[in-house]
Amino acid sequence: MSAGVRIEATPEQLAAVKYDASGLVPAIAQDVSDGTVLMVAWMNAETLQLTMQEGRTVYWSRSRQEVWRKGDTSGEVQWVQEAFYDCDADVLLFKVIQDGNGACHTGARSCFFRKFGADSTESSES
Amino acid sequence: MSAGVRIEATPEQLAAVKYDASGLVPAIAQDVSDGTVLMVAWMNAETLQLTMQEGRTVYWSRSRQEVWRKGDTSGEVQWVQEAFYDCDADVLLFKVIQDGNGACHTGARSCFFRKFGADSTESSES
Repeated sequence: MSAGVRIEATPEQLAAVKYDASGLVPAIAQDVSDGTVLMVAWMNAETLQLTMQEGRTVYWSRSRQEVWRKGDTSGEVQWVQEAFYDCDADVLLFKVIQDGNGACHTGARSCFFRKFGADSTESSES
Repeated sequence: MSAGVRIEATPEQLAAVKYDASGLVPAIAQDVSDGTVLMVAWMNAETLQLTMQEGRTVYWSRSRQEVWRKGDTSGEVQWVQEAFYDCDADVLLFKVIQDGNGACHTGARSCFFRKFGADSTESSES
């Protein structure tokens, strides 16, 4: 178990974030230790606030249409260390410590374990 | 000037990619040398094919509604080295060599140069 960092985002920063027509913004989780891109999921304004307050990633599950505290069932919590938003403020980036085996529901460390190319369908992203 | 890698994606891999209601899929560009997340933009089926064929990222510009060969005007071409898709096949990840100063139209190396937090508005993502 690792410690997440509570991030004191300013009201201006939170207000700057642009959500899509569904009220969602894509969020990248990146392993802070080696830069591996672990996964991309979605947040709404509420789950972004929860992520900041709790120091762990809280997504909005589009399939279940509910708040998704990553790792509550799997144990694979992502502890936030730093959080960024891009120049257009329509994508978020969280540098995290990944608990458990990895981020992916398949058991892979990263969700990006499938490589394009004839001879590399299941290559690991590293 | 660096060399991009032409990726021979299989028809099955290309058919697996899931596009949103606008026919687009988010694509992450990550610096292959150090793992920095450079930017996120969007591709449609056509620009994904062009990216694979040309060995450089070709996006779909949502604002201009046109094919966007990254770097044609700025010189900041992204040379593709490896390409991945995630477990849901609805996000793409390209490991690239970034030409020029960086990926961002602001002149920053990464578009994720804005850090959430009271004392770190303009911290660099590294």
